[in-house]
Amino acid sequence: MWEQDYRLFDAARIDTVTVGVFSWALTQPAPEVYDFSMLDRIVQRAAGERRNICLATGTGAHPAWLARAFPEVTRTDFEGRRHRFGQRHNSCPSSPVFRQLSAEVARRIGERYADYPSIIAWHVGNEYGGACYCDLCAAGFRDWLRKRYANLDELNAAWYTTFWSHTFTDWDQIEAPSALTEHWRGPDHTAFQGITLDYLRFMSDAMLTNFIDEKAALRQSTPDTPVTTNFMGMYRPIDYHRWAAHLDFVSWDNYPPDDRSPARMALAHDLMRGLKDGQPFWLMEQTPSYTASRDVNPLKRPGVMRLWSWQAMAHGADAVLFFQMRASRGACEKYHGAVIGHAGRSDTRVFREVSQLGAELDRLGGALLGARTPARVALLFDWDSWWALEISDGPSRLVRYQQVVLSYYQALWEAGVDVDVVAVTADLARYDVVVAPVLHMLKGDLAPRLEEVAKRGGSVVTTFLSGRVDENDNAFLMDVPGPLGRLMGVRVDEWDVRGPEVVNPVRLRGGGKVAAQLVFELVQPDGAEVMGTYQADFYAGTAAVTRNAFGSGHGWYVGAGLDQAGVSWVIRQVLDRHELMGPYPDLPDLESAVRVTPEGERLLFLLNHSADAIDVPAPGAGVDLLTGRPVERGQPLRLKPSAVHVQTMS
Amino acid sequence: MWEQDYRLFDAARIDTVTVGVFSWALTQPAPEVYDFSMLDRIVQRAAGERRNICLATGTGAHPAWLARAFPEVTRTDFEGRRHRFGQRHNSCPSSPVFRQLSAEVARRIGERYADYPSIIAWHVGNEYGGACYCDLCAAGFRDWLRKRYANLDELNAAWYTTFWSHTFTDWDQIEAPSALTEHWRGPDHTAFQGITLDYLRFMSDAMLTNFIDEKAALRQSTPDTPVTTNFMGMYRPIDYHRWAAHLDFVSWDNYPPDDRSPARMALAHDLMRGLKDGQPFWLMEQTPSYTASRDVNPLKRPGVMRLWSWQAMAHGADAVLFFQMRASRGACEKYHGAVIGHAGRSDTRVFREVSQLGAELDRLGGALLGARTPARVALLFDWDSWWALEISDGPSRLVRYQQVVLSYYQALWEAGVDVDVVAVTADLARYDVVVAPVLHMLKGDLAPRLEEVAKRGGSVVTTFLSGRVDENDNAFLMDVPGPLGRLMGVRVDEWDVRGPEVVNPVRLRGGGKVAAQLVFELVQPDGAEVMGTYQADFYAGTAAVTRNAFGSGHGWYVGAGLDQAGVSWVIRQVLDRHELMGPYPDLPDLESAVRVTPEGERLLFLLNHSADAIDVPAPGAGVDLLTGRPVERGQPLRLKPSAVHVQTMS
Amino acid sequence: MWEQDYRLFDAARIDTVTVGVFSWALTQPAPEVYDFSMLDRIVQRAAGERRNICLATGTGAHPAWLARAFPEVTRTDFEGRRHRFGQRHNSCPSSPVFRQLSAEVARRIGERYADYPSIIAWHVGNEYGGACYCDLCAAGFRDWLRKRYANLDELNAAWYTTFWSHTFTDWDQIEAPSALTEHWRGPDHTAFQGITLDYLRFMSDAMLTNFIDEKAALRQSTPDTPVTTNFMGMYRPIDYHRWAAHLDFVSWDNYPPDDRSPARMALAHDLMRGLKDGQPFWLMEQTPSYTASRDVNPLKRPGVMRLWSWQAMAHGADAVLFFQMRASRGACEKYHGAVIGHAGRSDTRVFREVSQLGAELDRLGGALLGARTPARVALLFDWDSWWALEISDGPSRLVRYQQVVLSYYQALWEAGVDVDVVAVTADLARYDVVVAPVLHMLKGDLAPRLEEVAKRGGSVVTTFLSGRVDENDNAFLMDVPGPLGRLMGVRVDEWDVRGPEVVNPVRLRGGGKVAAQLVFELVQPDGAEVMGTYQADFYAGTAAVTRNAFGSGHGWYVGAGLDQAGVSWVIRQVLDRHELMGPYPDLPDLESAVRVTPEGERLLFLLNHSADAIDVPAPGAGVDLLTGRPVERGQPLRLKPSAVHVQTMS
Repeated sequence: MWEQDYRLFDAARIDTVTVGVFSWALTQPAPEVYDFSMLDRIVQRAAGERRNICLATGTGAHPAWLARAFPEVTRTDFEGRRHRFGQRHNSCPSSPVFRQLSAEVARRIGERYADYPSIIAWHVGNEYGGACYCDLCAAGFRDWLRKRYANLDELNAAWYTTFWSHTFTDWDQIEAPSALTEHWRGPDHTAFQGITLDYLRFMSDAMLTNFIDEKAALRQSTPDTPVTTNFMGMYRPIDYHRWAAHLDFVSWDNYPPDDRSPARMALAHDLMRGLKDGQPFWLMEQTPSYTASRDVNPLKRPGVMRLWSWQAMAHGADAVLFFQMRASRGACEKYHGAVIGHAGRSDTRVFREVSQLGAELDRLGGALLGARTPARVALLFDWDSWWALEISDGPSRLVRYQQVVLSYYQALWEAGVDVDVVAVTADLARYDVVVAPVLHMLKGDLAPRLEEVAKRGGSVVTTFLSGRVDENDNAFLMDVPGPLGRLMGVRVDEWDVRGPEVVNPVRLRGGGKVAAQLVFELVQPDGAEVMGTYQADFYAGTAAVTRNAFGSGHGWYVGAGLDQAGVSWVIRQVLDRHELMGPYPDLPDLESAVRVTPEGERLLFLLNHSADAIDVPAPGAGVDLLTGRPVERGQPLRLKPSAVHVQTMS
Repeated sequence: MWEQDYRLFDAARIDTVTVGVFSWALTQPAPEVYDFSMLDRIVQRAAGERRNICLATGTGAHPAWLARAFPEVTRTDFEGRRHRFGQRHNSCPSSPVFRQLSAEVARRIGERYADYPSIIAWHVGNEYGGACYCDLCAAGFRDWLRKRYANLDELNAAWYTTFWSHTFTDWDQIEAPSALTEHWRGPDHTAFQGITLDYLRFMSDAMLTNFIDEKAALRQSTPDTPVTTNFMGMYRPIDYHRWAAHLDFVSWDNYPPDDRSPARMALAHDLMRGLKDGQPFWLMEQTPSYTASRDVNPLKRPGVMRLWSWQAMAHGADAVLFFQMRASRGACEKYHGAVIGHAGRSDTRVFREVSQLGAELDRLGGALLGARTPARVALLFDWDSWWALEISDGPSRLVRYQQVVLSYYQALWEAGVDVDVVAVTADLARYDVVVAPVLHMLKGDLAPRLEEVAKRGGSVVTTFLSGRVDENDNAFLMDVPGPLGRLMGVRVDEWDVRGPEVVNPVRLRGGGKVAAQLVFELVQPDGAEVMGTYQADFYAGTAAVTRNAFGSGHGWYVGAGLDQAGVSWVIRQVLDRHELMGPYPDLPDLESAVRVTPEGERLLFLLNHSADAIDVPAPGAGVDLLTGRPVERGQPLRLKPSAVHVQTMS
Repeated sequence: MWEQDYRLFDAARIDTVTVGVFSWALTQPAPEVYDFSMLDRIVQRAAGERRNICLATGTGAHPAWLARAFPEVTRTDFEGRRHRFGQRHNSCPSSPVFRQLSAEVARRIGERYADYPSIIAWHVGNEYGGACYCDLCAAGFRDWLRKRYANLDELNAAWYTTFWSHTFTDWDQIEAPSALTEHWRGPDHTAFQGITLDYLRFMSDAMLTNFIDEKAALRQSTPDTPVTTNFMGMYRPIDYHRWAAHLDFVSWDNYPPDDRSPARMALAHDLMRGLKDGQPFWLMEQTPSYTASRDVNPLKRPGVMRLWSWQAMAHGADAVLFFQMRASRGACEKYHGAVIGHAGRSDTRVFREVSQLGAELDRLGGALLGARTPARVALLFDWDSWWALEISDGPSRLVRYQQVVLSYYQALWEAGVDVDVVAVTADLARYDVVVAPVLHMLKGDLAPRLEEVAKRGGSVVTTFLSGRVDENDNAFLMDVPGPLGRLMGVRVDEWDVRGPEVVNPVRLRGGGKVAAQLVFELVQPDGAEVMGTYQADFYAGTAAVTRNAFGSGHGWYVGAGLDQAGVSWVIRQVLDRHELMGPYPDLPDLESAVRVTPEGERLLFLLNHSADAIDVPAPGAGVDLLTGRPVERGQPLRLKPSAVHVQTMS
């Protein structure tokens, strides 16, 4: 079958393969036995076929014999149940046995294959995630806490343990927060946000340690070949900002939940690109056709796989790979789409589209490699705020971090502006606009750094439920929005929240009326101008949106859960001021993005996500990279549904 | 910060504080160590400020060291999982260690602070509730059963264990009924209602024992100061009727699930007042603004906190307190509303409203204290019937005890009549009307006592699914409604139940037509007059509502799940007969209530729960207690939204 | 009370009683003590009353003392929790103690009562079902696997364990697949379909062993009296096809989920009859009025119990029994309907209807006994396909086996054709039409046997998601629909699935348009004629339904999730070709069915399931068995709602 595979890879111009992702049972069939004979054959064959190889350590699932011999390697779940062998991503991150043996297998793989020039990257583990609540993890948590807090007094203060008689008098009293301790109704309902928040941080760090273990083991033999693992976009359990420095490049798996949100994917791409300061990433996995893990797994429409592949490249991908290459015969991914189906045919629509993309990229050559996004807008994305918001009791469980962030990103995306999605610790000096939706937790010196942005003429936008808590999730003992108050020029004493059936219209300055839902902060200007006011309820006439002149710039405060039109109005006010609107701001389904090559060439991507053809004038002169033909500025461009246009901008 | 707190308390006329509710970790930081230094400072300061103190024993949550040293003090949940340290209300009620140590801390607090005259009440534990299913509780259950049943034969008969081969031949075979034994789909689905019912009774009693333990310990030093704990209104797990005798006065926490049911709150107040034969109670907790524990926690509208505080007083409260006084910095109640917010301001709307209420009550002085409600209508509320109905397999899980009870109470409330909500063991001699909705379980001599009410000219109202089972949840071997049949003059052989989408119209005597849903008993009059008949289905023309002349009075039987209009029609037929309608029966949102002071003065409360102003003539002459001005009978009164009117009735 | 019972049985002509179904605690009150005194009295009395007795071994629930003495007899649930004593169907099927003691009690009952001629059948256990995941079962599973697979290599290949590093290197590494191992989100979500599928097979076999144990024990004393257990129709956990050979006759309990699907009940009856090659069965249980176990338990309308009893007989029942005879006083079935209610009355509607049915059957005598259904249509029903489809990840969790099967059965039922519902191993030689909906798994020589049906002129109908996997749930490495492709003359490369809100119209040959939902296979004819095409989406114009000429017959492939109208169109095309339509195909609510007596007499049943009277001409001459009057062909018959007409067809 390998022979058939490679001939089909040739036909589809597939030049890079990821190999060995779940190979542990293969490479270490017994405690003291390592057997690389099969992996040798795979790697030798791939190398012989002159394929680039991304070689995995294969530790994303442990072997059955390991779970049997050392039950400690399995996880204990949130409900307190020790699992037995099964599934994948099944190892306790704190288990010494797991840590030692996973590093050892990585070490041996590095040692054995380091000299293959075909290997262009190492792939550690797989889609790190989940959580463990075993006693080893509880002990690891206590060690982690001892490093974070000088002593128990500090910890008690951070966790506010005088509440509900929780004062800890010995480190050993601290449990992993789970359904058996602080939680009810699942992982988001906790009696002590501080404990749960620290456990989320610890668990992310514990898995990072697993990655570091294996990377270090690889590095013993392979000092230069880059090492990565595949991320998952906006994945809540892992704080990728804390991980990114340890990866040589970022790669990620794009399985959007539906086919109706190109902006959501763009946000994920920009987040992934932002992890390592704008460095290009790999799209490690995408399905050519369907997923299998959802209740309903619709087929990707003709052209969509190509469109989304180009979207990845428009946002910073230097490589686009598929999972899976050939369809699994059995188990839970046998219906996950594949480049090559069970019948091994090349005359399917899916294979044809993959081949067409392959041919297209072949023609393109290395034109895009290493290109950067020249963004002047930053959107702050913060796992701590995400966690703190969503584990909070009150004001509203209906306010979801991703949804709010997406609504602000969507406004930027529809306006066609390039955006860097960055950590709160990022250098903000390069940006004209900083958007910080639901920045619930405000850490370190971020408030003065945001003030700095405004002072020098920039615009800072934040929203309801921002500036509420410090890094320990304790409320600031000052007016809302805490340390952001000075920049925003407002004060909030009270807020209403309601179910989605309640709409309060907000009249915007200039006359437009938009809807607000879920959150209604009663904003009291303290220097700021009122830009929008509530129209209903006892707080009709109260400010909902404000803009504060600060230095040469502005602080915008959006106290209401505005609908998309409202968010877009705010964002476009800001973009207008900085003249940052994209070329086609009135065509929301026409995505535009720019990358600048290492040589300084500006490449423009236009992607038609609508179901209709779009006609636009070319935004500049250059060369159409897909046809090789010159483009004149203003020349009519017809973009069919799912069409892609890439050109240089001279 | 204490200094600031007290100055703000002064501003708001706050004269009473509850202190130390979760103080165990503070007062007993280690097994052999008691440390009252902080509590001393708190109590001394409060006393020095001449504040009344309600001092708690602080045992609502155990300290971390205790759970670590004695895992037996934690609970085992319904799923059979032993918990570890976390949350609150976390102690196994049967644990000897918990019982001994909680009593000891109560004893020491009583001993230490008994002589402070500022202490006007002791507060034991906090919001008792939940359940434990550990082996200690199973053993406690068996002890409890040995007291209830003379021997296993009696128990086997009571539990009907010949069914499904369940005959117990040794007490040790009896398990706590849980997800691991008799239950599926949660606590309401049990194979043996008798076992589950007894466990509910046992668990309520076990926690009562915890209360009694601590009260007894306090009483060693403080023989006279009243002792209470805070109840929670219609809280299913605890049979407050079995508890009430052990409290010196009732207090409760009012956190209504929404702002749309003043009748529901009134019912809860009347239930709480009825626990101790009409004796006034404390409103121990309410939020001045929002809760934090719900998915969506809306803000109390302006005037609502005052309106609801007055409603409590109208229904028997002699004290109104708030939780919380100052906002928590961290943990799961940091967004629960507070009199004083995180910023410590007094210039907020919420603080202003609290202060206005304080000033109002200050002007009122002791005018209301000790006043009683002169009700001639009793509504029977029975935890056993609640439990039996809701753990029953068949006829319908959609019939919910609280909903049915509320619909009858709502009809009474809208008619403006004062109601005592009492136990089935209450003396019924003082009432003209007794309403007993879904009295599923009929215990002791209640049937003849209800007959007595009718004999002497009173009216008794009961409904579908009443009189079905005896105290062991075994069906009466007689026609439905069992021992109530004679009084009701009906017999029911069969009943239909349907989902909420099925409506059967019921035509009432006199011509009106109302809707019935969920339950449709086919009532066969056996002496009773037909007052309403079904209009549809194969039983069209069959009786749905009947009235039976019995002695000089009546027995009403409502066999159908009538809508609110139908229930109100029945209730108003009855009230009319006894001339018990309130002053404004056609204004359902205008609540009226009466209290009679120890001196015999009749006080009338009018509360406008609607969003509109209401104009009515004064129902009698007297003095407006809030303005001090005289009121003439018939004088126009304008009640704005959320307005409160209190006057004497001379 | 027994005296009263028997007089009421007489009144209702009840001639057969099932006795002792949960009697274990009664007959073996302690480890070494057997006590048959009560059962003796019951059996002697029933025999004395000349009642036929179906005597149970009583092992459907174990006694409390047994669970206490041997915790191994209780089950461990899917969540990994060892249960304690409670409920019923509570024994671990692999427990040696349970196996030994249940067989011993069966042996003693057989020995003691074998000589009673009144005993016409033995009833083993009760409604076998559920599952256990304890270590004894895991060990039993491994034993079962060792018999199924020659060695671990074979097992690893069957389960496709190279996926996710799952290769087993020792039998002891294999766990019972549960929430602690391969599953998430419950029993249908598994990482390894092969493991879960084998566990389903094993668990069904393990319980079958329990049945066989007891049957063998009975057979020591009672070699001839038939042995049965009560099945439950379409019950997923037990593969009744693997059980049926071990029962002497089939009996089952009919508790339909609602009163709106007579076709569903008919399907269940036909499935039960098909288990033993068309041999008549018993309806062992049905309620005369209501169930108790549902959230809402509506009352059976007047005439419905009779109608459904006759439906059972029309489809092959030789006996109709009720559960329960007298209402339980307590526990979870006290509200389950009974022939005799709590009050013991005979003047209730329900008792009257039971008596009328009894009188009717009494008049009928033995006319029906042993009659057979002369079906020329077979519907294939396959537990393996059911399991495989519903535990599959992808394409769609919304496609439910029973629903699809029912839609094809419904079409046949509405057309009034007799149908055998049979296993995939059944002899197909006698059928003109074979319908195989969602035959996901294709085992053994079924494909050639289906080809044989077509070759000789028959019609074979199959649908989407058929022919996908082999007996190990591994995909066929060939075009979809796998080995069915030749017969169907089609190939399917890709398929779309969508939520229920998406409808794609399908235009049928001849012009009609029907709706398709959930599944849309893009069918490429490879010899077949197109009988229906999609009308929307990018695959508009693609084939959705095809018919392939094969030999003298046809293979129909329905690639789309057609609505009932679409399915009926296909089925009627097929029935028309074979002239198999029933007498009143245009009256879907008028069920018709035929049985042929051992003497060769053809009996026609007409059952009116609609709410309206139906007038039809008699389809043939004969004698009305319920009135004894002659019927002329074409004579007008008026069938009132719920009416039953039974006549000979001469």
